[in-house]
Amino acid sequence: MDYYALPIANLIEQFSKLPGIGKKTAQRLAFYVLDMEDFEAEKLSQAITEAKQKIKLCSICCDLTDEDPCHLCSDDNRDKSMICVVEDAKDKIAMERSKEYKGQYHILHGVISPMDNVGPSDIKIKELLNRLSDDVVKEVIVATNPTVEGEATALYLSKLIKPLGIKVTRIAHGIPVGGDLEYFDEVTLARAMDNRREI
Amino acid sequence: MDYYALPIANLIEQFSKLPGIGKKTAQRLAFYVLDMEDFEAEKLSQAITEAKQKIKLCSICCDLTDEDPCHLCSDDNRDKSMICVVEDAKDKIAMERSKEYKGQYHILHGVISPMDNVGPSDIKIKELLNRLSDDVVKEVIVATNPTVEGEATALYLSKLIKPLGIKVTRIAHGIPVGGDLEYFDEVTLARAMDNRREI
Repeated sequence: MDYYALPIANLIEQFSKLPGIGKKTAQRLAFYVLDMEDFEAEKLSQAITEAKQKIKLCSICCDLTDEDPCHLCSDDNRDKSMICVVEDAKDKIAMERSKEYKGQYHILHGVISPMDNVGPSDIKIKELLNRLSDDVVKEVIVATNPTVEGEATALYLSKLIKPLGIKVTRIAHGIPVGGDLEYFDEVTLARAMDNRREI
Repeated sequence: MDYYALPIANLIEQFSKLPGIGKKTAQRLAFYVLDMEDFEAEKLSQAITEAKQKIKLCSICCDLTDEDPCHLCSDDNRDKSMICVVEDAKDKIAMERSKEYKGQYHILHGVISPMDNVGPSDIKIKELLNRLSDDVVKEVIVATNPTVEGEATALYLSKLIKPLGIKVTRIAHGIPVGGDLEYFDEVTLARAMDNRREI
C-alpha cells in the first residue's frame, strides 16, 4: 500500500472490505471514484450514510424498511391470514418478484445453525410467535432455503407453531422450471419424486 | 426496483454505477452495507468523500496526490534527469512496484485517441513539455501501453521532444518473464524478435 497517497490507500482498503471485492477490484473502484464527477461520488457516499440511517427493521415483519410498519405490512390488500417465513430480505424480494403470493411475510434474519453459534433466540422467532397470538393467522408457510440449517429451522418452527392450532406448510422443493433432470443432484430428484402430484 | 425501500433502491443504483458491478452485485453490496456496523459503513462513506476532497493532481507530474508537489516529485533521492511517461496513475504504481526505476514520472491521464475525441490538448502533454525547458531532463522514457493509441502517443511525443535535444526512449515489448512462447500472439513475438539483444 506504500505507493498510494493516504486517502487513496484508505479508499482501497474500505472497498476491499466489501464481499467479493479483492484488492485489484478495490483499486479499480477507487480510481474510478477519483475519476468521477464530485457530485456523483457524493451521491454514492450519501447513499451509504442515508441507507444506514433510514433503514430500520419493521416492527411487525422484521423486514428492512424506511417506514414502520413497512409498506407491505400496512397494505390492507394483502391477506393477513398467511405468513411466509423467509431467511432474509433478499428472499422476500425474490418471492415478491414471482407476484404469486398475496399474504404477509416474516424475515428471520438467519437460520438456526449451531455450527455458527446461531440459536433460536438469535433470529426473529420470538417476533414471529408474537404475531400468531391474535388468531388472525391461519397458515405459516416456511420458505427457508433447502439447506441443512434451513430444514432444521423449518422443523423447529413447525414444532413450535403447530400446537397453536395453526397450519404450517413448507414450500415445495424439486426440479426448477426449465431445468433438465440430468443436471440435478440425487437429493433434489428424490424430493421431486416425493412431492409428485397427480395431473 | 419497486420492491425495495427507497434508500435501499438508491444505494443499489449508486453501487451499480461502478465499473464491473452489475445489478445483482450491487444488490449484494447494498445488503452487506445495511448489515455492517454503523461505524464501518460510515468509514466507507467518509473514505469516498475524503478521497475526492483531498486528492488533487501534482502540479509537477500530474499524479494523484494529497500533497503538492507529490511525495515522489519532492524526493531528492530520485534522479531528476529522467522522466518516465505513463498513461495513468495505476501504471505508475505498477512501475514503482518493480523497484527498478529511480527517476521521475509524468502521468498523461490518457492517450491520444481520435476515435474517442481525445486530442493532444486533452491529456497532460503541455505539462510534460513545461518540465523539459530547464535543461535538467536528459531522457524521457515513454511507457504508454503497447496499443495503437499508446504507440501513436509515443510517436507524437518523440516528435515533439527529440528536437529539444532530449533522448526519447520506449520501454521494451516482448515476452513477459515466465511466459511461454506458444501462448503469445504474432505481434508480441515479432516485437520480441526485433528487440533481441546479444547475450
